[in-house]
Amino acid sequence: MKPMGPIPPGFIAAPDGSLAIGGRSAVELAREGTPLFVYDSALIAAKIDRFRAAMPPHVALHYAVKANPYAPLLTWLASKLDGFDLASAGELEKVASLGLPVSFAGPGKRDAELEAALHAGVTINLESEREAARALDIAERLGIAPKFAVRVNPPFALKGAGMRMGGLGTPFGVDADRAPTLVRLLLDSGADWRGLHVYAGSQSLNATAIIDLQRETLMLADRIAAEVGAGPPTVNLGGGFGIPHFAADRPLDLERVGEALGKELESRPKGTEYAVELGRWLVGEAGVYLTRVIDRKASGGRTFLVTDGGLHHMLAASGNFGQLLRRNYPIANATRFDEAPVEEVTVTGCLCTPLDLLGDEVMLPATEVGDLIAIFCAGAYGLTASPQGFLSQPVAREMLV
Amino acid sequence: MKPMGPIPPGFIAAPDGSLAIGGRSAVELAREGTPLFVYDSALIAAKIDRFRAAMPPHVALHYAVKANPYAPLLTWLASKLDGFDLASAGELEKVASLGLPVSFAGPGKRDAELEAALHAGVTINLESEREAARALDIAERLGIAPKFAVRVNPPFALKGAGMRMGGLGTPFGVDADRAPTLVRLLLDSGADWRGLHVYAGSQSLNATAIIDLQRETLMLADRIAAEVGAGPPTVNLGGGFGIPHFAADRPLDLERVGEALGKELESRPKGTEYAVELGRWLVGEAGVYLTRVIDRKASGGRTFLVTDGGLHHMLAASGNFGQLLRRNYPIANATRFDEAPVEEVTVTGCLCTPLDLLGDEVMLPATEVGDLIAIFCAGAYGLTASPQGFLSQPVAREMLV
Repeated sequence: MKPMGPIPPGFIAAPDGSLAIGGRSAVELAREGTPLFVYDSALIAAKIDRFRAAMPPHVALHYAVKANPYAPLLTWLASKLDGFDLASAGELEKVASLGLPVSFAGPGKRDAELEAALHAGVTINLESEREAARALDIAERLGIAPKFAVRVNPPFALKGAGMRMGGLGTPFGVDADRAPTLVRLLLDSGADWRGLHVYAGSQSLNATAIIDLQRETLMLADRIAAEVGAGPPTVNLGGGFGIPHFAADRPLDLERVGEALGKELESRPKGTEYAVELGRWLVGEAGVYLTRVIDRKASGGRTFLVTDGGLHHMLAASGNFGQLLRRNYPIANATRFDEAPVEEVTVTGCLCTPLDLLGDEVMLPATEVGDLIAIFCAGAYGLTASPQGFLSQPVAREMLV
Repeated sequence: MKPMGPIPPGFIAAPDGSLAIGGRSAVELAREGTPLFVYDSALIAAKIDRFRAAMPPHVALHYAVKANPYAPLLTWLASKLDGFDLASAGELEKVASLGLPVSFAGPGKRDAELEAALHAGVTINLESEREAARALDIAERLGIAPKFAVRVNPPFALKGAGMRMGGLGTPFGVDADRAPTLVRLLLDSGADWRGLHVYAGSQSLNATAIIDLQRETLMLADRIAAEVGAGPPTVNLGGGFGIPHFAADRPLDLERVGEALGKELESRPKGTEYAVELGRWLVGEAGVYLTRVIDRKASGGRTFLVTDGGLHHMLAASGNFGQLLRRNYPIANATRFDEAPVEEVTVTGCLCTPLDLLGDEVMLPATEVGDLIAIFCAGAYGLTASPQGFLSQPVAREMLV
C-alpha cells in the first residue's frame, strides 16, 4: 500500500452512498458521460469568504486565470473577486466581457497580444526593458494611453515552494536593481504607471515562508518607491498559497498569513492598493475528476482498475507535470464513497503507456467495472494543463455545480 | 554551459544560412506564422528504407499512430507501410479510409470503441479476459465475425528501456501464463484468432537489449503456440527502437537488430507473419519545432531568449513528460544555422511558469529578437503529447514537406 493525499474538506457521501459534489450525487452527475470535471462553487465561495475574513480588508483578491479558464467558472468568479490576472491574449478574450479589472503578465507577449491588451485597457505587467519599449511603441502607434505595471524579479524566493520564481536569473520580470530605472522611464513617457508586480513562487503550505516573502516583497516595493520618488498605485504581492496534494501535506495556515500581512500594512502609508493573486488555492480543492472503471484485471499478483480517463485530462495526478517523484493524489471510489477501503488496487487511465497511472497501490472499497473513480484536487491545473489530444481520446466534460 | 542532444542527421543549412528542412529554408517555412512543426518526409522515407534493408524481408513495418497522428503524415505513411497500430477509436477515425491493415491495442477500450473496431473489421488486441468477454458479446450482438489477437504481458522487459512495459504486473495484456487459455477460448468461440502482440518497452538505444527482447518474445510465442496447439497467424514483436535525444545518447544499431532477427526467424516454420510496430524511431527525428524569439533579456547574470513557443507544444523537451531529470533536447538557431555558437543562453517558452524551459544554458550563435529557434526530435510525442490548451495560447501549425 502506498499513501494518498488527503481528500479535501467538504466532501461527504450523498444519500445513495456515492460522493456528493455540490449536494449532488456523483453517480447522477456522471450519467451523461465520463470523464467529467465537476467544480463545486460552494467550496470556492467558502475559500473566498475565508480569504476575506483572514486578510486585511483593503487587500484585493485576484484570480490567476491560468489555473482554470473554464468559462462558466470565470463568469461565476467575476461577481466575487476584485480582478483577473492573465497570462495570454487568449485568456483576455475569456474575461474581457466580465467587467473586472484585468492585468496581464507573462514573459513572451507577442505584439498582437500587447495590442489586444492596450485596446482592452488592461494593465500590462512589463517583463523586460525591451518589452516596455515595444509596448510603448505600439501604444503610441495606436494612440492609446497605456497602463503599465512593472514586474520585478526579486532577489529572494518563496522558500520551500513547489515552484521557485525569484532569487535567480529568470525570464520573469526585471531584476530588482533595474526596476527603478524602468519605472522612471515609464513615468517620463507619460504612461499611467499602475505599480509593481512580484511573483516569487507557488504552491507553498508554509505560512512562515509566505509571511517572510510578503514582508520582503513590501520592503522591496518600499526601496523601489524611494528610488523612483513615487509610491506605486498598486502592489501585486503574487500568490504562492498552496493546497495539500499528498499524504504528508498539511494545509496552509491562512489566518497567520493574514494577521502578519495586516501588521505589515498597518505601518505603511495609505494610497497604495495591495493585491494577492491566487489560482490553485481558490479553485484546486473544489474540483473533482470523475472517471469510470472499464476493466478490472489481475497481473503479476496485483489488481488493476483501468478507467476511461487518464493523464490526457489529469497530467499532474499521473506525476508527470513538474514533479520529481510520483505520489498519489487523493483518490476514492465515488460510487461507494460511504464504504470502507478493503482492497489494494492500482488505478490507471486508458492510455497505452505506463505513464498513465492515477492511483498506485491505493486502498479502495471493493470496486467493480462501472464504478466511478474520483480524483480530487482537480480544480486547478487539470484539464488545460494536460495533453488533451494525446492518443486521440474524447474530450472531457466540465461542469460547475 | 550544459550539453544538448545531437542534431539528427540530415539537417544542413539552406543557401540563406537558415536551417533547411526538406530542402526549404526554415525562414521561408515560418513566414506564415510560428510556432510551427515541420515534418520532413524525405527523412522518414530514408528511415523506412533503412528498416527494409536491415530487417528480414517478411517482417512487416507498422506505424504506432499515437506517436504522431497528423493527418497528412498518416496519408503519406499509408503508401509506404504495412499496417497501422492504434490505441483509440479516435485514431481509427483518422486511418479508417487509408486502406492499410489496422490493429487496435490499449487497456481501457470502451464498448463504443470495440463496436467501432468490429464494424471497421479491425484486429482487436485483447488486453484482458474481461475485455475478451465484452468484445465477444458485442461481436455476437452485432453479428460480426471478430478478428482478435491476444496481447501478452511478458515475464521479461526491455532492459534499460526508457519505458518498461513488461516483466511486472501491468494493465497491458494478459499475463503470459494465462495467454494460452484465452487463445483457446477465442478459438473455441469461432473468432478469427489473428495471433499475439507483445510490447515490452520503448525508447531503447541498446541493440543487444532489443535483440534479447525479440528472441525472448519469439520463444514466448513458441511456448504459447505449443500450449494452444496452433501457430499464431501473426506475431507483433512490438517496438522499442529509440532515437537519441540527449548528449550521451548513441543511435541504435538497427542493422545488428535486423541481422539477429533474421537468424531467429530462419529456424522457425513458415505460416506466421511477423511485425514490428514503430512510432518514434520512424518519425521522431524528422520533425522540427520552430519558434520565434520574442524577447532577449538579462537576469541574474544570465541571458534569456523568450520564444513564442513552449511546453504547451513540446512538453517532452521541457523535461516534464516522464523524465526523471531534465536534459536539453537538440536545439539551434534556425535563422543562423550556418553560424558558430558563441554565447551561452537559456531558451524559454512564453508561458508564465518556470517549467517552460526549452534549452537550459546552451551555446547558440549570437541570437536576436525575431530569430527562429529549432528544437529537434519533435516529430513524435510532440504536439499531441503536450497540453495545448495551457494558458489559452494559440495552436501550433503543422506542415509535412
